[in-house]
Amino acid sequence: MSHDLALSPEADLADAPRRTARGGPVAPSRSRLRPLGPDEIVVDGGFWGERQRLNADVILQHCETWMERIGWIGNFDRVADGVIGGNHSGIEFVDSEIYKLLEAMAWELGRRPDDALERRYRSLVARVAAAQDDDGYLHTSFGHAGQPARYSNLEWGHELYCLGHLMQAAVARIRGGYADDEIVAVARRVADHVYREFGPGGRIAICGHPEIEVALAEFARATGESRYLDMARLFIERRGNGMLATTILFGHEYFQDDLPVRDATVLRGHAVRALYLASGALDVATETNDRRLADAIALQWRNTVSRRTYITGGMGSHHQDEAFGDDYELPADRAYSETCAGIGSVMLSWRLLLETGESAYADLIERTLLNNILASPREDGRAFYYTNTLQQRTEGAVPAEDQLSERAEASLRAPWFEVSCCPTNVARTLASVGLYFATADDHGVQLHQYGDYTVTTTLPDGRVVSLRVQSGYPFDGDVRVTVLADVDATIVLRVPRWAQGAAEARFVAAGRGAGSAAAATDPGTPAGAAGLGGGVPGGSAGAPLGLAGSTLAVARAFAAGDSIMLRLPMKPRVVHPHPRIDAARGAVAVERGPLVLVLESPDLPAGASTENAGIDLAQPLLPTARGAQASVRLHAEREDSGWPYDEPALGAAAPSTTVRAELTPYFAWANRGPSTMRVWLPTE
Amino acid sequence: MSHDLALSPEADLADAPRRTARGGPVAPSRSRLRPLGPDEIVVDGGFWGERQRLNADVILQHCETWMERIGWIGNFDRVADGVIGGNHSGIEFVDSEIYKLLEAMAWELGRRPDDALERRYRSLVARVAAAQDDDGYLHTSFGHAGQPARYSNLEWGHELYCLGHLMQAAVARIRGGYADDEIVAVARRVADHVYREFGPGGRIAICGHPEIEVALAEFARATGESRYLDMARLFIERRGNGMLATTILFGHEYFQDDLPVRDATVLRGHAVRALYLASGALDVATETNDRRLADAIALQWRNTVSRRTYITGGMGSHHQDEAFGDDYELPADRAYSETCAGIGSVMLSWRLLLETGESAYADLIERTLLNNILASPREDGRAFYYTNTLQQRTEGAVPAEDQLSERAEASLRAPWFEVSCCPTNVARTLASVGLYFATADDHGVQLHQYGDYTVTTTLPDGRVVSLRVQSGYPFDGDVRVTVLADVDATIVLRVPRWAQGAAEARFVAAGRGAGSAAAATDPGTPAGAAGLGGGVPGGSAGAPLGLAGSTLAVARAFAAGDSIMLRLPMKPRVVHPHPRIDAARGAVAVERGPLVLVLESPDLPAGASTENAGIDLAQPLLPTARGAQASVRLHAEREDSGWPYDEPALGAAAPSTTVRAELTPYFAWANRGPSTMRVWLPTE
Repeated sequence: MSHDLALSPEADLADAPRRTARGGPVAPSRSRLRPLGPDEIVVDGGFWGERQRLNADVILQHCETWMERIGWIGNFDRVADGVIGGNHSGIEFVDSEIYKLLEAMAWELGRRPDDALERRYRSLVARVAAAQDDDGYLHTSFGHAGQPARYSNLEWGHELYCLGHLMQAAVARIRGGYADDEIVAVARRVADHVYREFGPGGRIAICGHPEIEVALAEFARATGESRYLDMARLFIERRGNGMLATTILFGHEYFQDDLPVRDATVLRGHAVRALYLASGALDVATETNDRRLADAIALQWRNTVSRRTYITGGMGSHHQDEAFGDDYELPADRAYSETCAGIGSVMLSWRLLLETGESAYADLIERTLLNNILASPREDGRAFYYTNTLQQRTEGAVPAEDQLSERAEASLRAPWFEVSCCPTNVARTLASVGLYFATADDHGVQLHQYGDYTVTTTLPDGRVVSLRVQSGYPFDGDVRVTVLADVDATIVLRVPRWAQGAAEARFVAAGRGAGSAAAATDPGTPAGAAGLGGGVPGGSAGAPLGLAGSTLAVARAFAAGDSIMLRLPMKPRVVHPHPRIDAARGAVAVERGPLVLVLESPDLPAGASTENAGIDLAQPLLPTARGAQASVRLHAEREDSGWPYDEPALGAAAPSTTVRAELTPYFAWANRGPSTMRVWLPTE
Repeated sequence: MSHDLALSPEADLADAPRRTARGGPVAPSRSRLRPLGPDEIVVDGGFWGERQRLNADVILQHCETWMERIGWIGNFDRVADGVIGGNHSGIEFVDSEIYKLLEAMAWELGRRPDDALERRYRSLVARVAAAQDDDGYLHTSFGHAGQPARYSNLEWGHELYCLGHLMQAAVARIRGGYADDEIVAVARRVADHVYREFGPGGRIAICGHPEIEVALAEFARATGESRYLDMARLFIERRGNGMLATTILFGHEYFQDDLPVRDATVLRGHAVRALYLASGALDVATETNDRRLADAIALQWRNTVSRRTYITGGMGSHHQDEAFGDDYELPADRAYSETCAGIGSVMLSWRLLLETGESAYADLIERTLLNNILASPREDGRAFYYTNTLQQRTEGAVPAEDQLSERAEASLRAPWFEVSCCPTNVARTLASVGLYFATADDHGVQLHQYGDYTVTTTLPDGRVVSLRVQSGYPFDGDVRVTVLADVDATIVLRVPRWAQGAAEARFVAAGRGAGSAAAATDPGTPAGAAGLGGGVPGGSAGAPLGLAGSTLAVARAFAAGDSIMLRLPMKPRVVHPHPRIDAARGAVAVERGPLVLVLESPDLPAGASTENAGIDLAQPLLPTARGAQASVRLHAEREDSGWPYDEPALGAAAPSTTVRAELTPYFAWANRGPSTMRVWLPTE
């Protein structure tokens, strides 16, 4: 299908203080699935509702308070006052943190207007706007008296990167319904400046950190200004020709400047850079109908997910360069798995899902949201992981609550970082997370993620689909989809890869114990065989729906009150790593539903470490409320022989005891003080 | 025992163009074992003789040519000419590479005078000397017009580090017999300058990279100047109090500035820094009779070797900070194992061996020399590894032969690096390697390493022990020690840990088929039970010597021509990793004699990768000339399922073929073009 939306020139919106603009963070002018905007999808409780509330109530303020306190916001005031030279706080690219906070606030305000937040937001925007130069340039680290010249350090200065995040904040404000906001005007002047500086006839250059590409493409969609898309396309095409200067530690691959984007077959180098670039490239491919480029990105995604991704969805194996490693180079204990890379992965997967409709992309979004990104914020929202290791060998140091931490501190979460990209990235993701849950097409609605939310959208022919999704997900596998108004349409539910073959579904007609049903396993394929027996979710009777493949499609004339019940299996599962993942050989992970579970030291007898633990697979794995109970073997600490490579096998005779211990969700680890933890459990 | 040597004031030597000064790179004024100098131990062929010849004929010239070509040596000329400002070549600490080359040349000239080399050496020294400031300061990156001020960047400037290497070059010249060399005078002025600047009453500071400590201590020994030892002691005592400024990526631990040296229990942070510092601390402890400090270093060594050392002897798991990881964090594919860390490990182990006489230190020296340091130079001596990975997953890129490489290029060896510490470090180590082979004490001589060499030394009471060692080591396990002159003394041979329980020994009297023998298993313990039967090495008959423990001591009145025959087992051995080394779980290594073996792709059928290989332990391991033949399972490349963590076990059903393949010495890998390689072989 093709749909034309959100390409609304600013003029159209000038007199409307608030209007509805469809589309979330991404709104392609053509795609198989159409994204929904904050006016169409509302998260109203449950697991994700709690996290969005934490974000609104705590995380946004936490970010703002920190950046005010340490002078990062004040940088804009000092530019406006002409005193920034020698007085810049923080590293070169801290502007981007303010922009990501503004983006988060904009999504939050688009979701749920709030006067106090609106005032804070406008005050921040005004301070940013005051720092803009007459020609549209806006950056607090370059170009003013006493500072390096503009664009004098494209490799490391992150100027275009920061400007990109400013545009994304403007996009969020437009999509939240405020297309006439001051930040939109600021971002337009920025985008026009970038086009003059780097566009046709301008300097032929690229930024060391991709971001401007994805931002320009989306800002083009949001404003209808095609020059911005042209500029994004130029940045994509220029990349991969060794244009950026390398250093001892960082070669062309680090910058994705080793190979043209369309020639690469896998993501490589700095993970966040690679994922942002691929997202921008796909946007350009979609808007310019460049199939070769789109196919290259899909291939890169597939090879990266098959060979360079942690079980948590985390990406990036290397600390040194925050980069992907070789295929199957996935050590648990040096997993970098930067939170921002997880966010970049969701950005890319979402674009591919819209483009293709294939549910494998939604599978990875589910995994990454729940097991990588959600691991970053502490339960109280006041501290974050920058990296997300899969094995914590020692309890490590506790970061001070009132000090900046190094970026990759490998112990507890830290309140703020010298390079603090992750907290604000988490904030903008949580504020918009519901927009990744469902889409629409000409036939109906597709439900990709489960939780408690309501969808109301109008199809191109005027039919209105309105439905409510309820689920105790990710801890409970029962999903109920209730149709809120009569409609003849197709409702598609994703069956996660981990549930395929073990899921059940039923149709329950309004007010009736059981009703007739028309079921199809996939859009365009014949209806699957019905006949599932047994009880139904929620205690209601109903008609079994055939289930095969990765989606359940129910096409019928729905009456208000009709519901589809999907039951996903929540039995704990033992998961084996690919044999080429050397670092996980001889070990298994345990998953329950969409969650990766871990063994953490607080769940072991006092004094025991997860370093000496393994799992006894001969004993049953039993489900618990949030995880599983397993038989864990604890080996006695062995006297060092002086050399750890002795013949014969050292492991054979170690005395051990077995205990029953709870495995808990990875995302929740390290919320009970310093601990050791492991995802991969040796089996012996 | 205590012995007083090498503390010979320069004045004593002023008129002697060449004299004998005992002691190699380290000459403690008191220690259990006494090191031998180049006048006492001569490598005259065999495995190590070949490597010393390669060093003399190729590597020294290679280093000199490169550093001339890229202007690093010219830096000294530009300082002398007053034009260095803005014209310095290379990073801040390239001076140290010239000093390490000078040290290598000095050892080589001490070992084997050569007029051409002597001329090149003196020319280089003259150029260095011409750059010295009037007050003794000597550095090409700091302190001149247009340069940063002296000591303005102690964290990263490496000034004292470079000055330390200059002193070590002077020590080598003194120990090589030229105590009146120009470099000795230059180094004295440098040491006096450092004492004035940083000694009592001077600035309280330390260098970001330890080296000055070990250098000052040894230079004190070589010159008899106690102020230099005092200065070394002050630098050691100051460290560990957070004096150095940290950065986002490098905390106090990186610099060993987190804990006082005497309070630490394990080596941590940057591996080369940690090992150089510990070496200097032990020198200070020895000279000041500081038992607590000496015991702390021994404990650090033990814990590091037990838990933080690769099977090759390599140290340092992290690329990011070139640092040790946590206990048992020893990934094969990201093994940093910097060549210089191996050299630092030999420096430290050698000091502990001299101090204690315990052969575990000689065991690690053997392993590290043969399996880590020797892996660095290419067979032709014209390219080097900076890092020494234990698993090469892809063939990687081929470094250009005429260009500088990044320091940690993970493919073939490179001719030279931006940071090129390793080639010159290899050069100075190879030039002096024989000096680590044997020691003396009041009773006789101890043989720690095997090869082809002659020892002639005079014991304190005037007895002269002269003997010849012959061996096809490391490929052949037969060692023959022939006494060259009548003497009543004790000869001790190390029995490597890997050979204990399977070694045999015999005494063969001169001119006789078999003779009487007095054997003791360890100095001070009763003679072990004799009675080994079977053939004897070299085909001679002889009397079995009892063998138990880590040394064989033979005390008797030897006649010229008497010999001791030691047969070490060369059957390939399967070695299991400690169960806490997660990255090697489910895999084994194969060793033969002192060598770690690897599977390398050129030894597999065309097109096969070591990434898909495992070992079938049910089939026999057979010895070959340099390695072993094993049954290797090759798994078919599997079609990606799209997600590498699938239930059930992915590995079970993979089709495989089995081939017989040769496992070859690790040190020799990657000498046949780009290849893949692995030390740890999965067993399934």
